[in-house]
Amino acid sequence: MTDTAPRPTLEAVAARAGVSRATVSRVVNGGDGVRERLAERVRKAVDELGYVPNQAARSLVTRRHDAIAVVVAEPEARVFADPFFARQLRGISKELTAHDNQLVLLLTEGRDDHARVGRYLAGGHVDGALVFSLHLDDPLPKLIRSAGIPAVFGGRPDWNGDQRGVLYVDVDNRGGARDAVRHLAGLGRSRIAHITGALDQTSAVDRLDGYRDVMVDADPRLIVESDFTPAGGERAMRELLARRPDVDAVFAANDLTAAGALRVLRESGRRVPDDVAVVGFDDILPVAEQTEPPLTTVRQDIEEMGRLMARLLLRELDPRAAEERVGGTPSSVVLPTTLVRRASA
Amino acid sequence: MTDTAPRPTLEAVAARAGVSRATVSRVVNGGDGVRERLAERVRKAVDELGYVPNQAARSLVTRRHDAIAVVVAEPEARVFADPFFARQLRGISKELTAHDNQLVLLLTEGRDDHARVGRYLAGGHVDGALVFSLHLDDPLPKLIRSAGIPAVFGGRPDWNGDQRGVLYVDVDNRGGARDAVRHLAGLGRSRIAHITGALDQTSAVDRLDGYRDVMVDADPRLIVESDFTPAGGERAMRELLARRPDVDAVFAANDLTAAGALRVLRESGRRVPDDVAVVGFDDILPVAEQTEPPLTTVRQDIEEMGRLMARLLLRELDPRAAEERVGGTPSSVVLPTTLVRRASA
Repeated sequence: MTDTAPRPTLEAVAARAGVSRATVSRVVNGGDGVRERLAERVRKAVDELGYVPNQAARSLVTRRHDAIAVVVAEPEARVFADPFFARQLRGISKELTAHDNQLVLLLTEGRDDHARVGRYLAGGHVDGALVFSLHLDDPLPKLIRSAGIPAVFGGRPDWNGDQRGVLYVDVDNRGGARDAVRHLAGLGRSRIAHITGALDQTSAVDRLDGYRDVMVDADPRLIVESDFTPAGGERAMRELLARRPDVDAVFAANDLTAAGALRVLRESGRRVPDDVAVVGFDDILPVAEQTEPPLTTVRQDIEEMGRLMARLLLRELDPRAAEERVGGTPSSVVLPTTLVRRASA
Repeated sequence: MTDTAPRPTLEAVAARAGVSRATVSRVVNGGDGVRERLAERVRKAVDELGYVPNQAARSLVTRRHDAIAVVVAEPEARVFADPFFARQLRGISKELTAHDNQLVLLLTEGRDDHARVGRYLAGGHVDGALVFSLHLDDPLPKLIRSAGIPAVFGGRPDWNGDQRGVLYVDVDNRGGARDAVRHLAGLGRSRIAHITGALDQTSAVDRLDGYRDVMVDADPRLIVESDFTPAGGERAMRELLARRPDVDAVFAANDLTAAGALRVLRESGRRVPDDVAVVGFDDILPVAEQTEPPLTTVRQDIEEMGRLMARLLLRELDPRAAEERVGGTPSSVVLPTTLVRRASA
């Protein structure tokens, strides 16, 4: 709206209530030492005038904004196209709302915008940050460190750098991948391929490591690099069929990739699981239930990951909780996975 | 991270560059009057220390945060489930990024959280707000007015209240609805039903008015109230078949509702369009192309709506643009619609 009504001032409230500015300030900021009769008059004047306390000024005192930034290190279009992020945000949103903290989602068009995100984080607008889907060499962790606010990462953020004091919530990607490949081997499959995720992310590297733990001397042609997207899964499956037409099983790095692979297998006339068995990762619904055939996959509790990230950060921000930590630092969390059997393997 | 490195100060930069605090401040804030050789030294020190200027302090001077809030007056789960919002956000994100403004999406679990959103908007964290999917009696417009920041609404915000100075971008909902119903009548259908949207939103009311413009003496049983969701569309279609089994056409208030209605029609053994013709609204892809059969619908350019909302708000915030407005106020925009014919009608 253009004719924004002039915002009522502290002075206006004081005048209406017939008290001093200092009295209004004490009441508004929840301070003590004001007689109830006066406090009542101030609250009435605040209501009548629609006075909104200046949070910026107030937060200079309390140093809390009751707002938490969420940064997904992916372009906005990907955030909305991949149900993984929606699920994680659901967990975060529920936890933050339960603690009356505002979820501030900072969207970008890509990595070029991360410096601007860093400026916003440093600008005194939020108390902390929840960051996920980091890629190798992303400047975000350094920007967040410079911003001087605490952060919790979704997924182990950086496998070579200094890990001290970095808090994250991750899932046992390597163990889950081992379960998937062992399941395929248990079905009698021997030419088990792996379509990887984006290998500049630790989750993809860990899942590849899990595959290699079981397939110690796999033909390198059975490993095709991809990017966690359905279109990437289609491309990888075509490449795989060209390299090794005799492939009899595929472990895909996530369900979206598996869905793309299933489409290409169907086009090529192969039956799933009879000719080629397929296992995904995530158990993203409804995707995993609606593929043709429904997908056997490694389940991780994505919403719970989001909730835990938020909980860990709120604990960091609560000085009382900090005191309760007897000489220790709060620690990162790695959640277990479970194999969910459907029809594809 | 817990051991956040101490944030480098202006003083540290001054010491490293061997200049005064004031010189650093002038260079960092883009001011003039510093010799290039000195400015170069300051910039080098800024880089080496990873100094981030204090935006909070800076914005007290410039009064700009280069950040725009987006508020969708729907629970977080709905924002991610309905592709309409993703599309609108895409337009907003592109426009804001092109002007190096940070998109700050404020998510909530529901209307109970709108007071907290109002506090964030009033807290000096953003320059303005883009608000969409308002419902009747939502406290948000009033909270935004109290926050004293300019806003642009997606969709006409309130049909009874004072409209002066309220900026919005809308689509010709009534005209689009008329086109849809006239198209069905042109196919020779006479028992044309309407499944409404959520009638506490102006878009739904306008589409119902457009239906009534053409069906001036429609049997009231042909109008079933719904809520813009696929599940709502299914319920409404069942109700409609119970009330008027002879219905021969349906105009659904949006594509998601139409998709739900199509499922129920198929279950009931009716052929579309032979027995019942169906028209939607939005032209949300891929939904409208993937229904069975593909959906005839009223197209609105949702991404363009988002872009225009952002553009209108940035113009409000640019004092130069404000000067260029010769005695007038920037005005709200109503975009046209077009009927897209596919197989369902």
